Amino acid sequence: MFSTATQAVSNRVVAEVRRLQQIGAEFHARGWSLGTSSNYSVVVNREPLQILLTASGKDKSRLADDDFVLVDERGQCVEPGAPRPSAETMLHCVLARQPGVGAVLHTHSVWGTVLSDVFYRQGLLPIDGYEMLKGLAGVATHEHRAEIEIFENTQDIAGLASEVERRLDDAERPLRHAFLIRRHGLYTWGRDLEEARRHIEVLEFLFEVVGRTLGVTGLGLHLD
Amino acid sequence: MFSTATQAVSNRVVAEVRRLQQIGAEFHARGWSLGTSSNYSVVVNREPLQILLTASGKDKSRLADDDFVLVDERGQCVEPGAPRPSAETMLHCVLARQPGVGAVLHTHSVWGTVLSDVFYRQGLLPIDGYEMLKGLAGVATHEHRAEIEIFENTQDIAGLASEVERRLDDAERPLRHAFLIRRHGLYTWGRDLEEARRHIEVLEFLFEVVGRTLGVTGLGLHLD
Amino acid sequence: MFSTATQAVSNRVVAEVRRLQQIGAEFHARGWSLGTSSNYSVVVNREPLQILLTASGKDKSRLADDDFVLVDERGQCVEPGAPRPSAETMLHCVLARQPGVGAVLHTHSVWGTVLSDVFYRQGLLPIDGYEMLKGLAGVATHEHRAEIEIFENTQDIAGLASEVERRLDDAERPLRHAFLIRRHGLYTWGRDLEEARRHIEVLEFLFEVVGRTLGVTGLGLHLD
Amino acid sequence: MFSTATQAVSNRVVAEVRRLQQIGAEFHARGWSLGTSSNYSVVVNREPLQILLTASGKDKSRLADDDFVLVDERGQCVEPGAPRPSAETMLHCVLARQPGVGAVLHTHSVWGTVLSDVFYRQGLLPIDGYEMLKGLAGVATHEHRAEIEIFENTQDIAGLASEVERRLDDAERPLRHAFLIRRHGLYTWGRDLEEARRHIEVLEFLFEVVGRTLGVTGLGLHLD
Repeated sequence: MFSTATQAVSNRVVAEVRRLQQIGAEFHARGWSLGTSSNYSVVVNREPLQILLTASGKDKSRLADDDFVLVDERGQCVEPGAPRPSAETMLHCVLARQPGVGAVLHTHSVWGTVLSDVFYRQGLLPIDGYEMLKGLAGVATHEHRAEIEIFENTQDIAGLASEVERRLDDAERPLRHAFLIRRHGLYTWGRDLEEARRHIEVLEFLFEVVGRTLGVTGLGLHLD
Repeated sequence: MFSTATQAVSNRVVAEVRRLQQIGAEFHARGWSLGTSSNYSVVVNREPLQILLTASGKDKSRLADDDFVLVDERGQCVEPGAPRPSAETMLHCVLARQPGVGAVLHTHSVWGTVLSDVFYRQGLLPIDGYEMLKGLAGVATHEHRAEIEIFENTQDIAGLASEVERRLDDAERPLRHAFLIRRHGLYTWGRDLEEARRHIEVLEFLFEVVGRTLGVTGLGLHLD
Repeated sequence: MFSTATQAVSNRVVAEVRRLQQIGAEFHARGWSLGTSSNYSVVVNREPLQILLTASGKDKSRLADDDFVLVDERGQCVEPGAPRPSAETMLHCVLARQPGVGAVLHTHSVWGTVLSDVFYRQGLLPIDGYEMLKGLAGVATHEHRAEIEIFENTQDIAGLASEVERRLDDAERPLRHAFLIRRHGLYTWGRDLEEARRHIEVLEFLFEVVGRTLGVTGLGLHLD
Repeated sequence: MFSTATQAVSNRVVAEVRRLQQIGAEFHARGWSLGTSSNYSVVVNREPLQILLTASGKDKSRLADDDFVLVDERGQCVEPGAPRPSAETMLHCVLARQPGVGAVLHTHSVWGTVLSDVFYRQGLLPIDGYEMLKGLAGVATHEHRAEIEIFENTQDIAGLASEVERRLDDAERPLRHAFLIRRHGLYTWGRDLEEARRHIEVLEFLFEVVGRTLGVTGLGLHLD
């Protein structure tokens, strides 16, 4: 599909494919996208919405030029004969339809998976008072409390996508920056691919900090 | 043996040697094949069965072209004057004789070793409900419980190979995807080398998740 | 700004930019400068003081030639139209004004962040009796106790910079080698960039040793 | 000194310098030789004994051709004007004087440092029953108990070297393969550089296994 996409949506696709290949290799090396897990997407056209998305089940350490698909706002392949989009396509679509969202990254890290489980009964993972939080778009001070929602895992992706869509605009507790799926992984997004990548790095760092702090202190004990 | 093997079994051997060299460097870098530990094999001919196998005691970070041997279904070297096959050759043969098995990877990771010991008295390591389980061949939902059998370590590899062979077809609890040897390491397999490599990545990820979860929560405690 | 700076302050700037690009990639790979966190500086002229500093919010894995600014002793940009210096510029200036300080490195590591929080109520992180301490400038024996001061994090960088400046010359407990900011990161310095980089490596190593020792032993228990 | 050494002791020195540069970069990347810590040596001539040794205080990630010295059996520099040998030269000499020792590697890893402290009161670190033990020269079964002696750290290297020398031939409990210095690091050796490097990998792996097992199980608890 790569050569076709190049013609269809211009050089934008080529550039984003190259950058996603680098990011895939990077995330795989860090252990955040092992075993063909993870999927990544970038909005390459807004009207009509076209999303460049990693195809299902590809090795992220060496994404080939034809390991991507182009889908529309409902997750349907734009091109005939393209490889199957990821089962989680609808989650990408729901996020990409939001104003100001240009890229969505979904990863499976060890610490994200551990914390998505340990904090599941609380319903969210609180991350409070760290300087690194300022790496999240729109956060200007470390005196910020991120509350990363944790959804139960499901094979009903359409249902989860609807729930995520409703929660994005929730009056009381809107989803901001990211969410976790229990024992599964992290979704985050940004206005473009670089911002989404920065959010992954920021959140993975913070997950590891929270996890190791629990390991050192047990359930919150501090040295006096 | 490499030039001979090339002539004997065609370009297939060359391609698999190249890929095994890459995988060896990758696994060594991740710490899964340190100190000349580990051995890897690929079926390069089915009738008669010929298996390309890493020779004993080689540095996996830089496998040379002649660090491999070709063995038959009983683990005998196909070529005269070849380097000694690994002591664990018979485990590879037993697995490679199964229908649908095209590659076997054996690694020694820190988390696999730790868990093979901590869970030994239970007889198996249960891994339950993780999305990453879908990276194991034939698993279509995260609502899956992998039970990774743990065998006691032994220097009697022939005896262990017989036991493994019997258990592969066990009516009640057949071995699926992988097994651990206590304080030793992991064996996994796949229909080809890429699937076996994916299984290694999936299982190592899950071992680390299980190990770190224990580290954070102690023996199963969750935050409420 | 790079070509201008090159002309203005000579080949010194070029060499330091090249080395900072390498160090940025190295620290990013180790996870010490993720998510555009961290900033680095080198004194490129003493009279008048000119400091080469990473610009705010840059990806440390691939610092471009124009991701740096030149500032004077009060943190003002030497060149018109230069990118915004980091908010933490004043901390770099305060340190660079000290005699014998030629470079300042600020990083955000997981272990540094964890310990800055766990030891905060003690006011300092004690590191006592390790051979690696001899990697700190002027320390000639392992029988040394480093006391890494921990400051509360703040958005009032000017205030923190004043406090740090006062403490550098404190009669009773002068800051030596480094300090931590709570839930934020590490500042260290050296007579040149290589010494500052060595201090980062030494301190990050020791933070991990202290953190993992706590994880193994709990609050100080030793095996008898 | 490099060109002189090349002429003096033949191409052997050149080859060993190249390999030590690779090993230094590798160990630094793994975090076993940070902050200019560690020193490495290879016997390049037996009669009279000449030892190629890393000079003191060099960055192991990028050892230059002149970051090495040649010393004799008493640790004296063979060449005039050579850089200062490491303070720990005498430990290398004592080991290299043993029959069958061709290389000595000294590293500073996190897990080695942690365990050298946690097990210090026991006097040794026991490592028992792991398959990876077979990576130590002369160990043919996993049913082996390595007892890694732990010496108290000291600045009196001459005294420590004498003690080590005495213990190498100790009738009751001879040092085998390696020893630890408390809160300092690991010494291991081999008949050549590759064997010594394998010992480092094997021991570092086992240290991490022991350390993480303690972290998961506390002081020895196993799941039943």
